[in-house]
Amino acid sequence: MSIAHASSISHVALKTLDVEQQAKFYTQMVGLGETERDNSGRVYLRCNENHHAVVLIPSTETGIDHYALHMGSTANLEAAAAALSHAGIPYETETNTKLGQGNALRLRDPDGYVIELIGEMTQVNPHYGPRAVQPRKLGHITLLVQDCKQSAAFYSEVLGFRISDWVDDIFLWMRCNPDHHGIAFAKAPADSKLHHFAFEVKDFSYLARQADHLMNNNHTLLYGPGRHGPGENHFEYFRDPENNLIEFLSNIQQIWDDTTYEPKIWDSRQRWVNLWGPEGPADFL
Amino acid sequence: MSIAHASSISHVALKTLDVEQQAKFYTQMVGLGETERDNSGRVYLRCNENHHAVVLIPSTETGIDHYALHMGSTANLEAAAAALSHAGIPYETETNTKLGQGNALRLRDPDGYVIELIGEMTQVNPHYGPRAVQPRKLGHITLLVQDCKQSAAFYSEVLGFRISDWVDDIFLWMRCNPDHHGIAFAKAPADSKLHHFAFEVKDFSYLARQADHLMNNNHTLLYGPGRHGPGENHFEYFRDPENNLIEFLSNIQQIWDDTTYEPKIWDSRQRWVNLWGPEGPADFL
Amino acid sequence: MSIAHASSISHVALKTLDVEQQAKFYTQMVGLGETERDNSGRVYLRCNENHHAVVLIPSTETGIDHYALHMGSTANLEAAAAALSHAGIPYETETNTKLGQGNALRLRDPDGYVIELIGEMTQVNPHYGPRAVQPRKLGHITLLVQDCKQSAAFYSEVLGFRISDWVDDIFLWMRCNPDHHGIAFAKAPADSKLHHFAFEVKDFSYLARQADHLMNNNHTLLYGPGRHGPGENHFEYFRDPENNLIEFLSNIQQIWDDTTYEPKIWDSRQRWVNLWGPEGPADFL
Amino acid sequence: MSIAHASSISHVALKTLDVEQQAKFYTQMVGLGETERDNSGRVYLRCNENHHAVVLIPSTETGIDHYALHMGSTANLEAAAAALSHAGIPYETETNTKLGQGNALRLRDPDGYVIELIGEMTQVNPHYGPRAVQPRKLGHITLLVQDCKQSAAFYSEVLGFRISDWVDDIFLWMRCNPDHHGIAFAKAPADSKLHHFAFEVKDFSYLARQADHLMNNNHTLLYGPGRHGPGENHFEYFRDPENNLIEFLSNIQQIWDDTTYEPKIWDSRQRWVNLWGPEGPADFL
Repeated sequence: MSIAHASSISHVALKTLDVEQQAKFYTQMVGLGETERDNSGRVYLRCNENHHAVVLIPSTETGIDHYALHMGSTANLEAAAAALSHAGIPYETETNTKLGQGNALRLRDPDGYVIELIGEMTQVNPHYGPRAVQPRKLGHITLLVQDCKQSAAFYSEVLGFRISDWVDDIFLWMRCNPDHHGIAFAKAPADSKLHHFAFEVKDFSYLARQADHLMNNNHTLLYGPGRHGPGENHFEYFRDPENNLIEFLSNIQQIWDDTTYEPKIWDSRQRWVNLWGPEGPADFL
Repeated sequence: MSIAHASSISHVALKTLDVEQQAKFYTQMVGLGETERDNSGRVYLRCNENHHAVVLIPSTETGIDHYALHMGSTANLEAAAAALSHAGIPYETETNTKLGQGNALRLRDPDGYVIELIGEMTQVNPHYGPRAVQPRKLGHITLLVQDCKQSAAFYSEVLGFRISDWVDDIFLWMRCNPDHHGIAFAKAPADSKLHHFAFEVKDFSYLARQADHLMNNNHTLLYGPGRHGPGENHFEYFRDPENNLIEFLSNIQQIWDDTTYEPKIWDSRQRWVNLWGPEGPADFL
Repeated sequence: MSIAHASSISHVALKTLDVEQQAKFYTQMVGLGETERDNSGRVYLRCNENHHAVVLIPSTETGIDHYALHMGSTANLEAAAAALSHAGIPYETETNTKLGQGNALRLRDPDGYVIELIGEMTQVNPHYGPRAVQPRKLGHITLLVQDCKQSAAFYSEVLGFRISDWVDDIFLWMRCNPDHHGIAFAKAPADSKLHHFAFEVKDFSYLARQADHLMNNNHTLLYGPGRHGPGENHFEYFRDPENNLIEFLSNIQQIWDDTTYEPKIWDSRQRWVNLWGPEGPADFL
Repeated sequence: MSIAHASSISHVALKTLDVEQQAKFYTQMVGLGETERDNSGRVYLRCNENHHAVVLIPSTETGIDHYALHMGSTANLEAAAAALSHAGIPYETETNTKLGQGNALRLRDPDGYVIELIGEMTQVNPHYGPRAVQPRKLGHITLLVQDCKQSAAFYSEVLGFRISDWVDDIFLWMRCNPDHHGIAFAKAPADSKLHHFAFEVKDFSYLARQADHLMNNNHTLLYGPGRHGPGENHFEYFRDPENNLIEFLSNIQQIWDDTTYEPKIWDSRQRWVNLWGPEGPADFL
């Protein structure tokens, strides 16, 4: 039994040098809608009825500031706080409150990434004007870590994630609901930063549409479309203007029976990144 | 005015070391149907009502033996013969007659590729049993040549092709009907062989389905899916067991007004192979 | 707490007047593969690694003979048997054993439909040769019943299904896993028979493909493609030669959090069958 | 030889009671972009680089005002004027000049529909902001007429259209370029009005997307998606707020060899409207 139980990936908060440029890219190129801005200049962006899936934070740096997990309810969040205290896991009550969400806790994972836990989010109008492609939800977050097994132990014991698949000791995927992965880890001892985060679209045809949309606006994919081994999902990757890597995915494997699912173990010397064949560029992994 | 006027790409004939292995691959993996075999062991394969789009010829070598253009009618073929004679272009009447087609002429292009001209083809049942993907037609043939402009001059003056696009002096596409290209040339002075040939499918969703079909049978794509600049078509490439390169394409640009169409000239230093971005492997071009 | 807990829809067994004609239709038009036949002439058909999703039973009648639920494991099946006995729910041990599955129980629902419970199924090769469309799985079964609420009570209390949505007292959908519905009921007091059963395909493009495939073989859709309100899934319907109604569906709503999901209640006077608009023929409902 | 030769369908001009409501619908629901408005309040709407595909004309009525054919060039337009004069076909030079197009001629077809002939159109930016679906072009216009054969004779002799297919004496399709039809006629002796006009989209997946887009905005399809017999195209139909019927289509048959194409003759008692099967509502035809 784990201490707490995340129920879904809520949002990712990015530090940004040029918030206007990023807001424009995320609304026009990623298909998000701007919900609102707060007094500190943070921009809240959504892709469905949830108030935000991405938060842009004005900064002198780029990269991930924190990311958030939804615990399912305010009661669950309070239970998580109590259980964390009981287990001696340090956390803070979020003081610099963001818009659109209730109280929050913050703790750090073994690599120092800031994880925010929330129990509720304001529901808003999901129809914010046409987009070439409007994602359905934030799907997962992939982090560079020191040690995948160490990360897996933390996320399993503290936050209730289950291991889905892994590749040797270099990559590991975990789920907190039937989506094959909500969080993933890639081994990169020299670095502690976001590898990418992913939005889910309805089906494969939307990946072509997004690729055409980027093309028509002088942007390009870094990799894809293709089909990942772990998760079986279709994928494509592109970068935002501040070099954050974004995945669009569809048709991810659903694992709803935790008692019968057996993690797949992939051999790094075999094909696993793209079962269709083509490999990514050198700077992808 | 050109001497003769091809109206469509008819078929490609491949020399093959292992005709059974190739026949199995083309029926099961490319989605063709075997129409019949002749006394010399040649296998005739189709993808629509035309008797053959691919002919496999038992041989001690691999690679292209010849390819064929359809002149539209027997009368057109006879007119072409007369016009070629009048112009002093050497050709032969085909003696080793293939099944499913009437009389044929054979001539050679500047690089020595054997071009067969036909005027009729037997129409057969296009429903030959389910396939994961059944292509709609043979779309084009791309040849490695000494000099793209020399090839273009020959195909324009002798066979009525029009130039669609080109990239510096390294690539050139020509059409004989509204499809953006039916024949294409890639500069490769050291070599005189087929670069690839292409089958058209209904739309982009069939490229995903074909990629999944190959994956499920332990084959992989070499490149794609993506979107070419010249022709605007979606593409993906894979190899047959004897290393011939096959393209599946969809949504190719239609050029029906030859009086207003302006060839696009691409700069080899700019993006043109894949407007979506990802580049092919080193052995693609 | 319910007595037992179904984990998925296993298969449907159809009585058939002309088993060869039906086997041909289900393999060629529905995209199934014939696994094997038993001594009594029953034909076992699959669409994935499970030994059968459809069983054809030679008979002097047509229509449903029984359908089967998978309990997840042999242990679960044994636990279900004990719990049913303890609760005084009558059942029989299946004596006329089918191939490819272990022991089974049989009980009857309030309308007399025979429900088979199984705990294991032989796993076989899911690649049985190309099909125009190979379904991914049997998705659900919809039955005509006397009283939807009475049926819902039985399936909830005895077999662990949860109510997903309903329309007045005329239609009701239940799930036993994240798929929005695995079983559904339509009120039809004068009749006690199968309304339809459904196969899931990968995405919407496969519905077009299947419609084209039927068209090319002189079959037609009864209804669709469209988009259902309850379940949000894309749909299309066609009949087999013995008039059984088959649905192909894609993109069905996933409900993985039973604690937060609220059933949607549809008004029969509002649009619910097809949110895209077009209505079905008079003999559809 | 015909008197003049249309090269493509240019635009349709609709009388409208509520120009703001229509402009909103055509931009938000049909995916067009507003190019500009003129002094008389007419709204020019585009879907590609052509200045307009639809013109909304403030009026006290609804329905078609006129539609326009592009002759390919100013020289062609002048040649058409001379040829019409020579043949004694009455026409007028357009005086109430529209924006974005050069000089124009106007003549009437046998049913009194006003046909505008143009020779040039201003090219503008085709990227006017994201749309759920941005059509590729205006595809065709279908008119209710007294006598399909009489209409066919006029469009053939005067404007160079060729007959593609027909159904008894009730429906007839004509082309002026490789698209199977650019103009079509439905027999309706009591009426002289537009039946519908059609926009082409990239492929079938865009029909699902458009249906979802309408659904999300409380609009519905009148009919489809399906597959027409004549033209083989996928289709779906919906109405604008003033009851004009709009078709979205994809994958229309390309006829590029007028010398070998044989018109298909459909029997009204056989299936032809939708080869997939489902019939339209009573008010569709």
